[in-house]
Formats: sequence, C-alpha cells, structure tokens
Amino acid sequence: MTPEEIAQCAALAMALEVSATPKPGNIDREHNYPETRYEHFLASAIATYPFFAEAARRRRSFGDLLYSAVIESKKWQHGGNTHFGALVLLLPLAMAEGETAEAHEIVKDTTTKDAIRFYQAFKEADVNVPRVERLSLESESSIREIREEGKTLYQLMVIAETYDEIAREWTQGFPLTREAHKLLVNHTEEEGADINEAIVQTYLEILTMEPDTFIQTKHNRRTAIETSQQAAEIIDQIEREGYRSTLPEIKRFDDQLLSKRINPGSTADIIIAGIFLLLLGGYRY
Amino acid sequence: MTPEEIAQCAALAMALEVSATPKPGNIDREHNYPETRYEHFLASAIATYPFFAEAARRRRSFGDLLYSAVIESKKWQHGGNTHFGALVLLLPLAMAEGETAEAHEIVKDTTTKDAIRFYQAFKEADVNVPRVERLSLESESSIREIREEGKTLYQLMVIAETYDEIAREWTQGFPLTREAHKLLVNHTEEEGADINEAIVQTYLEILTMEPDTFIQTKHNRRTAIETSQQAAEIIDQIEREGYRSTLPEIKRFDDQLLSKRINPGSTADIIIAGIFLLLLGGYRY
Repeated sequence: MTPEEIAQCAALAMALEVSATPKPGNIDREHNYPETRYEHFLASAIATYPFFAEAARRRRSFGDLLYSAVIESKKWQHGGNTHFGALVLLLPLAMAEGETAEAHEIVKDTTTKDAIRFYQAFKEADVNVPRVERLSLESESSIREIREEGKTLYQLMVIAETYDEIAREWTQGFPLTREAHKLLVNHTEEEGADINEAIVQTYLEILTMEPDTFIQTKHNRRTAIETSQQAAEIIDQIEREGYRSTLPEIKRFDDQLLSKRINPGSTADIIIAGIFLLLLGGYRY
Repeated sequence: MTPEEIAQCAALAMALEVSATPKPGNIDREHNYPETRYEHFLASAIATYPFFAEAARRRRSFGDLLYSAVIESKKWQHGGNTHFGALVLLLPLAMAEGETAEAHEIVKDTTTKDAIRFYQAFKEADVNVPRVERLSLESESSIREIREEGKTLYQLMVIAETYDEIAREWTQGFPLTREAHKLLVNHTEEEGADINEAIVQTYLEILTMEPDTFIQTKHNRRTAIETSQQAAEIIDQIEREGYRSTLPEIKRFDDQLLSKRINPGSTADIIIAGIFLLLLGGYRY
C-alpha cells in the first residue's frame, strides 16, 4: 500500500464519520454545535492528510506527527478541537499500514520525547476537558516531570487506561477499533447496508459496549453509563424492527443528547479508526 | 505555496462545494440522486488529492493528470462521474498556483497529446451527455482524427466554447471562476456570511449569469435559460429580504429542480474553482 493510499483512507475515514447521520449527540452533516461546525471537521480531515502519508513513510516519530497534525488542523479551521483523539488512534495505525498488532508494537515503543510532544499537542488542540485535568496536562511542570522521570508516552497511557478508552486502545492492542472494524464489515458486506447506515449502527454498538470517555470527562460517569444504556435500547430495537423503523427513535435520542450537549466524542474517534481499517481493507462504495 | 497546500485547498474546495446546502438541483449534504450520493463526492474529493500536489509540482502534463485523477476517482467511488468538469478547471489552476492569467497560458500550451488524454479521461469518467455527443467524444475515430489533424486540446476547447461554459473558462481566461471568487470573497469578508451561505449564494449568482451547460446538454437550452431566470428571481429576493428569509424559497426551488432531475453541474464545477481560489487566497473559517 502506498503512503498516498493510506492518507486517502485516513482522510476519507474522518470525512465519512463526521458525515454519518443521525449520530446521536455528535456533529454530523445535519447537526452543528454553536462553536464547532460540520465544516470544521471536513477542513481538519483534509488538512491532516499529509501527516498520514508521512506516518506511512515511517520517517518521523508519532509525537512529532501528532504535534504537526494538530498545528495543521488549527491552521485550517477555527472550531476548536476536532480530531485529537482520532489522530492518537489513526497515526500509529497508519504507521503500521492498518495492522493492529504492529500498531500495538509501535505505541509500546514510544519514548519520553513522544510523551512531551503529546502534551504539547494536547495543549494546542484545545481539547474539552475539566480544568483540573487540563492543568495537569498542560502545565510546564508536567512536562518537566515527564522529562525528569523519563516516562514514555506508552507508560502514561498505561496510567490513563483505567479511565480513558483511547488510552486503552493503545495499551490493549486496539480492541474497540478492531470490534468497530468487524461490525462495519458485517454491516456493509453481510447486511448490504450503505456506508451511512453502517457507520450509525456501529457507532451505537460501540457506544453500548463502553461508556464514552469524553462524556465522562465533560459530564460524569453516570451520564456516560446512562447514554450507553440508551444506545443499547436502540440497538435492541434495530435488531427487532430493523434500522429504518428505528430511525425516528435514533433521531429522538440525537435531539435529546444534542440539547444536553452530551457528545460521545471518544466513541466517534474509535469509529474513525474502524472506518480507516475498513477502507484500508479495500471497501469501496 | 507548497504542493501539499495546493492539494489541501483543492480537496477542501470540492468537499465544501458538495456539502453546501440547499444548492438547488445538485447533490448536497442533504440530497442524493439515486445512483450518485453525497458520499461519492466526498470520496472523489479526497481520492484526487495527490494529483493536485503533482499538478503543483509541474512534472506531468495536464492530460496525464486529468486521466490519472479520473481513474483514481473511479477506484474510490461507484457513483459515476463526480468531478470531471471540476478537474478540468482545477488542474490548470493548481499548476498555476491559482494565478488565472498563468493558468490561461498553461491551457493555451496544451498539446495534441493532452487532447487525446482528455478524450480517454472523458470516456472513463462516464459523463452524462447525450448519446450523439458521447459517440463523437468517445469513438476511436475521434482520437484518430485528433492525432491526424494535430489538434491541441486548447483548439478543441475553442471549438466547444460556443456551447460549453467550462470550455469558455479555458478560452477566455476563467471569467466565471474569477467572478465566483470575487463573490465568495465579498460574501465571506464583507457580509460575514458563513461558508455554507456564501457558497449557496454564489452558486445562485453564477447560475443567473450563465445558463448551465450541463442542464443544456442533459435537457435543452430552454430549460437551462428558465433555470437561470428562476435563480435570478431568488437572488432578487435575497437582495430585498436577506438570505435567511429567502431560504424557504431556495428550498422550494431545490425540490422543484431535484424532482425534474435538473442539476446545474457545470455551475457547481465553476463554484469549486472559485472556492479553490478563495482558499488559496488564505480564507479560513
């Protein structure tokens, strides 16, 4: 696979994910948040293209690529953070040409320098996290500590894995990414769903499996768990009555989450990684 | 400007154009045609990215780039022709880094080989044209004739300019592209419109200025002229009452055109070229 193909798959994965509608709580082609709009995600998806080609060429470290991609995304859109979590998943997968076992080795090999770059990138990305966590993640003293203690980025992810599903993807070998990929293959190939429907269903299924980290951080754990339970009820209904008949219910769920600003952002990041693997595997529509 | 920046601008221009809604008669984020869907355009926009970077590097001829981009677009989506007309405009503009005067020189310098590649690309692109024209454009004898007579692609565009507004962009130095660019700058900078509204308005304005070639080819000249007249009435209303108040009327116009499958495809191509210049000029949102 050429670096260009890998970059095409990554950019298209991001564009397809944000386009998929109705995607309860998250921005999609028909729903914006006041400060962050659909077009911000399109710009970011295309702006980060070159860094996936670079990742595939394996000439730069993960940390450098992440930092550069975040800076580039910010140059192209003013909607705040769009793809930080997605980049954390996609870049090692791009370096590994989609082989999750190899991507796992790559993230295990990250260094202290990667950890510092990660913190710097996080600071630039303007990720929506509570003030306390932001301070710890953004403070100069944190970076000094990492440097002094010689912690690698992987070691930091091991610490974070108890409360962060993106960190868990790193430490456990991309389990939800692989699951999302499997579900997407199933929906598109076995069930003949179109790409939009396949993404919406997979999104709800992954949300059911794991309370969303982003909701947990922005709201609280109870809200994250309740959101997953509601998603599970919708999945049950889809299984009983089919996707099309359940669509009004999905839209109601969407309206409800949007009005409370409950957006399962980490789940969306994982779905992007799953779509990336689907496209790398040759799926076209 | 780097080749990557030029490719980012081109891909984003295509993504923003197809996303803009409501865009009467054409596919947008909320409207598909049965065989060609919104996601086909997103795939094509991202698939053709590398050819704009190549165009900017000026190492390959226009004809080769067009042919390769069309083939790549087809590899990534099965919705038929998406961006043939847009590529014909964007590639010389990318080669010229957005300088329309230089792009005009570049298209004047096209060769017989470019003409042959253009015909081959056209054949691959599955452009929706009447059977008679398709035969003339696709037949092997046409290519033989071009070769024997030594006609350049620019000379063929001069022949086509009487009935084809894309050809006219080539022969007259991109007049509508420049106009679209000017209107987009005005809407975004002077009036503070968001990118979606700016594109929809500019689209209607360009449609008003020129009966759409694609409608004329697919339906007839009268339909193209009537469509432009209707667009003019909507522009009048926007000027009197503002964009937001006119939105229901724009949506009605959209429904009407979609139901009759009247899609101003050439106007959309020109708008893409205008957005490309807007982004090359540094516009971000």
